[in-house]
Amino acid sequence: MKPIWIKHAAQLATIAGKNEPRKRKEMSELGIIEDGSVWIENGVVAAIGTTVELEHQYGDRASEAEIIDATGRLVTPGLVDPHTHVAYGGSREREFEMRLEGATYMEIMNAGGGIHATTRMTREATEEELVEQTLRRLDSFLKHGVTTVEGKSGYGLDLETELKQLRAMKRLNEIHPIDLVPTFMGAHAVPQEYKGNEDEYIDSIINDMLPVVAEEKLAVFNDVFCEVGVFTPEQSERILEAGKKLGLIPKIHADEIESYGGAELAAKVGAISAEHLLKASDEGIKQMAEAGVIACLLPATALYLREDAAKGRKMVDEGVAVAISTDCNPGSSPTTSMPLVMNLACISMRLTPAEALVAATMNAACAIRMEDKVGSLEVGKQGDIVMWNISNYQELQYLFGVNHVDKVWKKGEQVVG
Amino acid sequence: MKPIWIKHAAQLATIAGKNEPRKRKEMSELGIIEDGSVWIENGVVAAIGTTVELEHQYGDRASEAEIIDATGRLVTPGLVDPHTHVAYGGSREREFEMRLEGATYMEIMNAGGGIHATTRMTREATEEELVEQTLRRLDSFLKHGVTTVEGKSGYGLDLETELKQLRAMKRLNEIHPIDLVPTFMGAHAVPQEYKGNEDEYIDSIINDMLPVVAEEKLAVFNDVFCEVGVFTPEQSERILEAGKKLGLIPKIHADEIESYGGAELAAKVGAISAEHLLKASDEGIKQMAEAGVIACLLPATALYLREDAAKGRKMVDEGVAVAISTDCNPGSSPTTSMPLVMNLACISMRLTPAEALVAATMNAACAIRMEDKVGSLEVGKQGDIVMWNISNYQELQYLFGVNHVDKVWKKGEQVVG
Ligand SMILES: [Zn+2]
Ligand SMILES: [Zn+2]
Repeated sequence: MKPIWIKHAAQLATIAGKNEPRKRKEMSELGIIEDGSVWIENGVVAAIGTTVELEHQYGDRASEAEIIDATGRLVTPGLVDPHTHVAYGGSREREFEMRLEGATYMEIMNAGGGIHATTRMTREATEEELVEQTLRRLDSFLKHGVTTVEGKSGYGLDLETELKQLRAMKRLNEIHPIDLVPTFMGAHAVPQEYKGNEDEYIDSIINDMLPVVAEEKLAVFNDVFCEVGVFTPEQSERILEAGKKLGLIPKIHADEIESYGGAELAAKVGAISAEHLLKASDEGIKQMAEAGVIACLLPATALYLREDAAKGRKMVDEGVAVAISTDCNPGSSPTTSMPLVMNLACISMRLTPAEALVAATMNAACAIRMEDKVGSLEVGKQGDIVMWNISNYQELQYLFGVNHVDKVWKKGEQVVG
Repeated sequence: MKPIWIKHAAQLATIAGKNEPRKRKEMSELGIIEDGSVWIENGVVAAIGTTVELEHQYGDRASEAEIIDATGRLVTPGLVDPHTHVAYGGSREREFEMRLEGATYMEIMNAGGGIHATTRMTREATEEELVEQTLRRLDSFLKHGVTTVEGKSGYGLDLETELKQLRAMKRLNEIHPIDLVPTFMGAHAVPQEYKGNEDEYIDSIINDMLPVVAEEKLAVFNDVFCEVGVFTPEQSERILEAGKKLGLIPKIHADEIESYGGAELAAKVGAISAEHLLKASDEGIKQMAEAGVIACLLPATALYLREDAAKGRKMVDEGVAVAISTDCNPGSSPTTSMPLVMNLACISMRLTPAEALVAATMNAACAIRMEDKVGSLEVGKQGDIVMWNISNYQELQYLFGVNHVDKVWKKGEQVVG
């Protein structure tokens, strides 16, 4: 593989600094180099600086490299999506239409819709079919400048299918350029066959599923949908603590629909991140800041569900490290566009353009423990890079609704453009 | 130019039927042909039907044509954007950032922001510079499947600059594949030099500007920003009636910020369309339906300004023909994505996927008097076609936030893909 030399970037936003969740003012520090250059060799960043600096360092090796002229263009790290349910079976566009045609919840359920539809279609799909369907979505992520993606199981809700989802993701991580970081989420819903026996299902998660997942190293994280009518904070805690004993790091879908103590629980169990948080309490936000829990906010989901977005501005101001994500899933956010999510972080949550970029790179990387490899452009980190068809980071958020990606490199290999 | 034969479309949404604004149930009729084919010759649609039908009709000429395999793909007419301010000077991304950093309205004004900033930068730009800056935006429209665009003047607010904007658009229409349909909007704002002497500015519009615009045939439509603090309904009526006498068809920016009788005025003066309508009264909606005024709704602007979107669902149900548009402009909607606007028509305004597509094609074409040439795929109409990287029209709206355009043809010539 030839070295890549990206030269003359109008703005090279390195996001360089500590590999730690950025808070408050740190979320605005983009480490911008004007007339920036980056040299990528063997898949990693070998040097970064102004073009003049790199001319000194690498000028005599220029003929070896593939040279990319980034004049007039913004260059950033590859985006990181720290929360998706990307590996699912089937599609639900007809349900979307039925809802807009006025169908009731029950009519959609009777027509085989809702989350149980995806569970059924995911159970029915072979591992190979899951891989194929998910590949298309990963390709779309890549086209939107996303080079690292977290993916959750949770459409199986039985041992066999949960493992199938996780194994499909393992395979996808091997065959697709994107780094796909797996999360076990057996506690995504109570399967229909356990209605009324929720604790029995939780026993099954703890006794049957978690040990296999940990043993086979199929997941890094253990996530729970803590919500009224799904899993209580007490049940969620049981599941997360059981995972911790097996080395699985806790995450929580918290306070999405009702304020339910999810943010507080995230602080209590030491979750790496809490997700959604539309209805997080002030006290919960404070506890998250103190405990260092990353808020993973999903403004595209709020838009799709016509809910008010999470209080991103307030969380940043109160010292919570904020990350953002598509929540890519077939029910409440069937999108793969992190650029749109950055736009919405500004428009709906009042993050600044700089904060939105940090939320989609370094803080997102920290939310999935990938900060040592991705999330910023620094010597030794992966050559995961996006060149944008605009000249500055403000335009990236201002000219909204447009995918401004020009070229993408993953581990130093050009994968888009 | 070789004929183009697009074959085997999974869904060919023709939108065929009367070249008239579609209302109520008609807004759901997509005229879908499965395994569809279209033969384009000399820039126009020569035949359309199932692939089997076209095999009979054109099979022996197949070797002459460029054949496009649309297996598994949706094919639609080129999208039409019936409301933009695309031909402006300068850029305001820094103002966007300042606002998110907490700057007040006055601080932004003092830093040279707001509509008067665009007026200043548009006045300062040469016609050639305006053409160049707008070309980039038209290219972006094309990439989003938009092949016909309306464009307004209104950042000049003096004779010379209004004419410069209109002449720039005339030139753009000649040199760019997109059909650019011009609207005069001298009444977009009261220029700073006329504050307190609004009626004097209106006299200048009526006596100095409109006659030249009509004489030089620089515009088809005459538009007014009827809003509290801008132009009253009475002033708006004066301007629109003066334009009508010169053959300019009225349009009205109506009831965007406050309910101000704009919808009612649109019905009264026989406007072809009324724009925005976020705060249109029930009575105004009824009058628009009776008078046949098209509602041109701008949900991306509502999103960007964090306002509730217009009542699109109600308007369709009450018999108003609804069109949708980006409102592309540097202040309240700096986007070129009609696909996102269709998504938002569903998500925020509760149009069905089919209605959103009709609103972005036939009804949009009718709103700018282009329905005889574009807006549907029928024999004799322009070969303005989009092939999408998805298999059905529901997915187009469901898989939101993504530009699913695969290829675009304008007058039978491939311009994207
Ligand atoms: Zn989720
Ligand atoms: Zn407008």
